[in-house]
Amino acid sequence: MDVTIGQVFISEVVGTALLILLGAGVVANVILPKTKGFNGGWIVITFGWGLAVFAGVWAAWRSGAHLNPAVTVGIIANGQDQYVEGVDVNLVNTLVYFAGEMIGAMLGALLAYLAYKKHFDLDADPGTKLAVFATAPEVRSPLWNVLTEVLGTFVLVFVILNFANTPTQLGPLAVALVVVGIGLSLGGPTGYAINPARDLGPRIVHALLPIKGKGSSDWSYAWVPVVGPLVGGALAGLLALALA
Amino acid sequence: MDVTIGQVFISEVVGTALLILLGAGVVANVILPKTKGFNGGWIVITFGWGLAVFAGVWAAWRSGAHLNPAVTVGIIANGQDQYVEGVDVNLVNTLVYFAGEMIGAMLGALLAYLAYKKHFDLDADPGTKLAVFATAPEVRSPLWNVLTEVLGTFVLVFVILNFANTPTQLGPLAVALVVVGIGLSLGGPTGYAINPARDLGPRIVHALLPIKGKGSSDWSYAWVPVVGPLVGGALAGLLALALA
Amino acid sequence: MDVTIGQVFISEVVGTALLILLGAGVVANVILPKTKGFNGGWIVITFGWGLAVFAGVWAAWRSGAHLNPAVTVGIIANGQDQYVEGVDVNLVNTLVYFAGEMIGAMLGALLAYLAYKKHFDLDADPGTKLAVFATAPEVRSPLWNVLTEVLGTFVLVFVILNFANTPTQLGPLAVALVVVGIGLSLGGPTGYAINPARDLGPRIVHALLPIKGKGSSDWSYAWVPVVGPLVGGALAGLLALALA
Amino acid sequence: MDVTIGQVFISEVVGTALLILLGAGVVANVILPKTKGFNGGWIVITFGWGLAVFAGVWAAWRSGAHLNPAVTVGIIANGQDQYVEGVDVNLVNTLVYFAGEMIGAMLGALLAYLAYKKHFDLDADPGTKLAVFATAPEVRSPLWNVLTEVLGTFVLVFVILNFANTPTQLGPLAVALVVVGIGLSLGGPTGYAINPARDLGPRIVHALLPIKGKGSSDWSYAWVPVVGPLVGGALAGLLALALA
Repeated sequence: MDVTIGQVFISEVVGTALLILLGAGVVANVILPKTKGFNGGWIVITFGWGLAVFAGVWAAWRSGAHLNPAVTVGIIANGQDQYVEGVDVNLVNTLVYFAGEMIGAMLGALLAYLAYKKHFDLDADPGTKLAVFATAPEVRSPLWNVLTEVLGTFVLVFVILNFANTPTQLGPLAVALVVVGIGLSLGGPTGYAINPARDLGPRIVHALLPIKGKGSSDWSYAWVPVVGPLVGGALAGLLALALA
Repeated sequence: MDVTIGQVFISEVVGTALLILLGAGVVANVILPKTKGFNGGWIVITFGWGLAVFAGVWAAWRSGAHLNPAVTVGIIANGQDQYVEGVDVNLVNTLVYFAGEMIGAMLGALLAYLAYKKHFDLDADPGTKLAVFATAPEVRSPLWNVLTEVLGTFVLVFVILNFANTPTQLGPLAVALVVVGIGLSLGGPTGYAINPARDLGPRIVHALLPIKGKGSSDWSYAWVPVVGPLVGGALAGLLALALA
Repeated sequence: MDVTIGQVFISEVVGTALLILLGAGVVANVILPKTKGFNGGWIVITFGWGLAVFAGVWAAWRSGAHLNPAVTVGIIANGQDQYVEGVDVNLVNTLVYFAGEMIGAMLGALLAYLAYKKHFDLDADPGTKLAVFATAPEVRSPLWNVLTEVLGTFVLVFVILNFANTPTQLGPLAVALVVVGIGLSLGGPTGYAINPARDLGPRIVHALLPIKGKGSSDWSYAWVPVVGPLVGGALAGLLALALA
Repeated sequence: MDVTIGQVFISEVVGTALLILLGAGVVANVILPKTKGFNGGWIVITFGWGLAVFAGVWAAWRSGAHLNPAVTVGIIANGQDQYVEGVDVNLVNTLVYFAGEMIGAMLGALLAYLAYKKHFDLDADPGTKLAVFATAPEVRSPLWNVLTEVLGTFVLVFVILNFANTPTQLGPLAVALVVVGIGLSLGGPTGYAINPARDLGPRIVHALLPIKGKGSSDWSYAWVPVVGPLVGGALAGLLALALA
């Protein structure tokens, strides 16, 4: 059954909103003061983000559940003709995917803020409060940070593009587990944005919201988790095409 | 094959009892003194509850495994005609689901108490002993706590209602993983009841049982994990209907 | 294709040996001195035992992968006619299952000892060295300990007997996850033997092996993790039959 | 559709590179200074390696995704005729598998180094930096260390060879979970190389790269994680054949 571009938009908004609600939520749970999951560690963060993807992908099945401009770009670079049945790969449709992803990410960040409102009201380092929304590197070095994001996103998009080749019924679980794996393995230096919308959308929300005791939104770093993932996604699409 | 309403009742009792036996059990294991899992952390809590759902759903396959009045309400709000083959969505049948869920939850809480009896007999804070049965917020603020429960339950019911749309063979595992994800991400402020029966049933059992050194059952908070999940479930059913 | 009773025996030996090699192994890894997983916590223990079941079930597919006399007893109590195609439920075949399970458990314990030989040679509390082989309660109270083992094993066997009713392709993963869940939730008081062969077989091996600095094999407790699981398995079989 | 030996080579290179990028990556994340996952514990390490296998197997579906000379050897010992359709088991094809595995492992180690470059530049013990690349035993005792590697690899290859016998749709997830299980249970003494290419390839890269503050590549131990896994894989192939 053909999908309309309006359905794609709504699907990406809803799915990405779920992704960021749960993804920003798990960071809030681990780092904001007085939460049940405080100091839960990297295993909590990575499974939280992976299962955020899991929930988002179920909710966005109709549009193919990109939830991530790097995935959209990877599909373009892979030379595919359609995003889903009835939705061609062209400029307008691509921009609709991007718009849905960004708006969904912003909506999700807002909801995560509301879920943890009373914990945001407590005293905490401004950098901690920003970290619920956007990534930051442990060692700031833009070009190396970009490279780490390229590698992480490459793995994500390359494996996703290979899913079609092995028959299993894992569906959204497979994507979720790859995201857990990337977080465990490649999240150490930069916090694995691996998704421009995941980082930029919530960073804008951080800048707009009247968060108690908030500090800078760290705009000087904001290009890294946009450029790195887009390059990584494109490279994955090209390599998958070359090896097909 | 048609299912009778009597079978629905038994199925929901058994499934919810398993859910709460394992769910209250994992809390007991992490917070009661001298257990093997003492201080096991949030990852133990969240996987324990997720796999409690996993076991309960297997056991309650015949009734569709709601195990949760918020799921029942979500199905109503979604405008479905039947709970399972032969069981219409109507007032009587809905009350049977609710009754099975509540009785099952109380039975499960009793069994978890018995499993950890010797640990309940040890000295511990009355609040710790209550926490095995019922949720409590980290920052008490009823309206914000309700909102957090609305959001968590919304995610649960909305994703469950989308399961039918993506073909996989994950079955109960998909529900379990969504519950793990909600716990990791949105459990921080209130302990994610996301199920009125899960909180109210065991709270009643806590009030009734002669638990050594027990304190208040914290009735002033008891409405939050009932109202929040019911609202969240209803909203999820309505949104899923609007987007269908 | 019919299975011979000789194949059943070998299958149960191999599967249970894998189960105990990995199960005793994860305990060794977490509690013996100087291991990589030292102090890894309850999440390591429970996933280790769950995935031990996963591996054992794959290896013992031919005999139906009981790996546990409580499962065998549950199938009898459930009134089934055959263990697998060609192998009737009768006294002789039941004893063959039991023998395979016990011998496999002893073999697995021996292999786990060999894998961790250099760590057993280091100084450690005799109780720690025993704990790699056999379970011990945190609060010694035989009747309550039996009850905890009854409940844990009931959940295991009851859920396994319900697997046939929900179509999924999870296979061995479903059993593994239930075992993880039982460990997380009900393992706190007694260490969840939930399997007579898992406890008794390795305890015998502990008594026989020349382990450096070993102490008592704690025979006074040895009946608990035998009787509890057998009762729990039988109750599960009966309840599943009554609800069928 | 027949697969060419050139496709096998590329497939094994790509899959093993992903395996080691993520596998070495998770070790870097847990042990190098100032990473997000620092001190994340054994559960992070073992799930990281398991999901590294998961990603690698998806990417290398075309060649059967050995990614490990011990798997290749196990298939030979099992007496199989073809690696995949169109690729016979013979000396030349076997050497192509080995070459792809080794080159992929070296490539993956290089990429992991680049992803964590700024953290390798920080001060850390030379042994810590080596541990990102190659395994080392906790108690050095070559013959016992070999035995531990034999046992771990035996479990891996034996279970993989049994996958064909139970119908599920887990696919790469099954292999990933077995690897998690082996790590949890048998990784304690030697760090579970269970794969000659996984250890030797990155060790060579460690020797070649200009890593800041690096020390010895510990060549005296290098034979252990080569010989142990090859023996374990061969034994698994033989036993699976004997029991078939």
